[in-house]
Amino acid sequence: MTEFGFIDSVKELAKVLPLNGFEGIGDDCSILEISGSESLVFTADMLIEGVHFLRDATSAYDLGRKTLTVNLSDVAAMGLSPVASLLSLSIPQSLSSEWIEEFMRGYLELSSECGVALVGGDTTASKGAFAVNVTAIGRGSTSNVKRRSAANVGDTIFVTAPLGGSGAGLADILAESYETPLAKLHKNPTARIAEGVWLGTQNSVNAMMDISDGVASDLRHILKASGVGGTIELSNVPCHAGADLKLALTAGEDYELLFTCSDPDSLQRDFVATFGTPLYAIGTIVEGDSIEYLMNGSATSESYHGFTHY
Amino acid sequence: MTEFGFIDSVKELAKVLPLNGFEGIGDDCSILEISGSESLVFTADMLIEGVHFLRDATSAYDLGRKTLTVNLSDVAAMGLSPVASLLSLSIPQSLSSEWIEEFMRGYLELSSECGVALVGGDTTASKGAFAVNVTAIGRGSTSNVKRRSAANVGDTIFVTAPLGGSGAGLADILAESYETPLAKLHKNPTARIAEGVWLGTQNSVNAMMDISDGVASDLRHILKASGVGGTIELSNVPCHAGADLKLALTAGEDYELLFTCSDPDSLQRDFVATFGTPLYAIGTIVEGDSIEYLMNGSATSESYHGFTHY
Repeated sequence: MTEFGFIDSVKELAKVLPLNGFEGIGDDCSILEISGSESLVFTADMLIEGVHFLRDATSAYDLGRKTLTVNLSDVAAMGLSPVASLLSLSIPQSLSSEWIEEFMRGYLELSSECGVALVGGDTTASKGAFAVNVTAIGRGSTSNVKRRSAANVGDTIFVTAPLGGSGAGLADILAESYETPLAKLHKNPTARIAEGVWLGTQNSVNAMMDISDGVASDLRHILKASGVGGTIELSNVPCHAGADLKLALTAGEDYELLFTCSDPDSLQRDFVATFGTPLYAIGTIVEGDSIEYLMNGSATSESYHGFTHY
Repeated sequence: MTEFGFIDSVKELAKVLPLNGFEGIGDDCSILEISGSESLVFTADMLIEGVHFLRDATSAYDLGRKTLTVNLSDVAAMGLSPVASLLSLSIPQSLSSEWIEEFMRGYLELSSECGVALVGGDTTASKGAFAVNVTAIGRGSTSNVKRRSAANVGDTIFVTAPLGGSGAGLADILAESYETPLAKLHKNPTARIAEGVWLGTQNSVNAMMDISDGVASDLRHILKASGVGGTIELSNVPCHAGADLKLALTAGEDYELLFTCSDPDSLQRDFVATFGTPLYAIGTIVEGDSIEYLMNGSATSESYHGFTHY
């Protein structure tokens, strides 16, 4: 059973439960409207040694930061500000106090930089691997919440930066080159928090999510949730220095934002004015239910598949 | 470094972060007031194969229930109703689909029985042990929230049922008797959700928490948070059938409630009328900062220490 197969089956099973004011599973975060105008969002991510990271290849400090980053990215992808986290750690005896302190230093420094409270969690021994679970909580105006299901035919598909750098860095790490610039990017990515919160305030932004599994995989979630199709113009997909088109579309872990917008020219202009960096228009939402890859406007037989977790 | 030492150091480090409306770490759950009259509470627990359970000794179904139970217990110990959970699973390849389905059946059945939504989570592969993290969310009236810090000198210390049954069951399991009644109690405990929510509505109930590490350990948290001491009358400590006094005070995992009350007679009467079972008065809050164990009113030199996680 693949992860997505399992998640689909859990989603089905969870439907027999009450919602208690929450929206059902389907976005980067779960949404709870707490008043007429304000909502909270919730997300959880688990990182396991040997699956998501190699202890020899990363510093404890970087790992502490990345553990939080991936969750803050999910919150920002909803258009809201991260406000708090809960941190659960499973610690093997082989880990030194110094290693754990460095992990916590990274986690707490990023919390401080992003103004995020640490409000709870758990610590336990481990008989094997180091394991971490973070639950992040975001808060903001209900009208700013962006969902995967809101893409409309005619929307332009944007990403916030060149892609594939993290994937190229992972290739370096797997080749035991741990300290290349791309390896460092993979080990210590940046969540687009300010950008996500700003995009949340833009009425022309419809569907949004973060890029954790690669555009080829992540865009499918938007298309499925919105009941639409999409075209991607391969010549417009921005590749990070050191990454090719395949990595850019399929490697994931870039933690950039993927979104659709009904007024691309205005948004481009305002985004550049606000952040000093461009947005990258990579395609268009169309009728249908799949992704078509174009090259200079002509149909191709290309097909890309993002990361699947197991 | 012990778990409590590590948690103390994280609590200190977390103090440099903003609170964003949350109360700091210190109770079974973190508290967020979302309006003048309503609060949410949050808790996370991680369970690791080989540390918290042996896969051979428990059924996947029981484990699915217990994973949620321990979190619902934390919510109820705050006096609020659990409303939602997020579930993260790290799944080794050696686990069959059937095992995972049974785990989910237990988890979802208990969710359904308790009216709790499943609103998110994560699934990932594991190179080693099966690991689970649950984050539970509770909701209710701000005035019903019970904290560890609210015990007053003169309060009676209560527990909701005889103790030590889970610890005696664990002893059976470690002796490879997996199917005794006490072993079953250990593997599938019941959280006192209705009782916790009801106690939350009682103004005479001051401090409250659940018994996860044994009264000898858990009561210390109330005493420390409240700046008080306590006496425990050993002849009044109710021992579960099959458990002795030491197990009752130190073994933990009973998931009964431990609380203090300024009007014990009325509360006793109303509790019995509501639930049909008695409360057990085991001691008194006094000035000081430690626990004194009495036998028939006379000081003893007894000392008990609850479970420490590593």
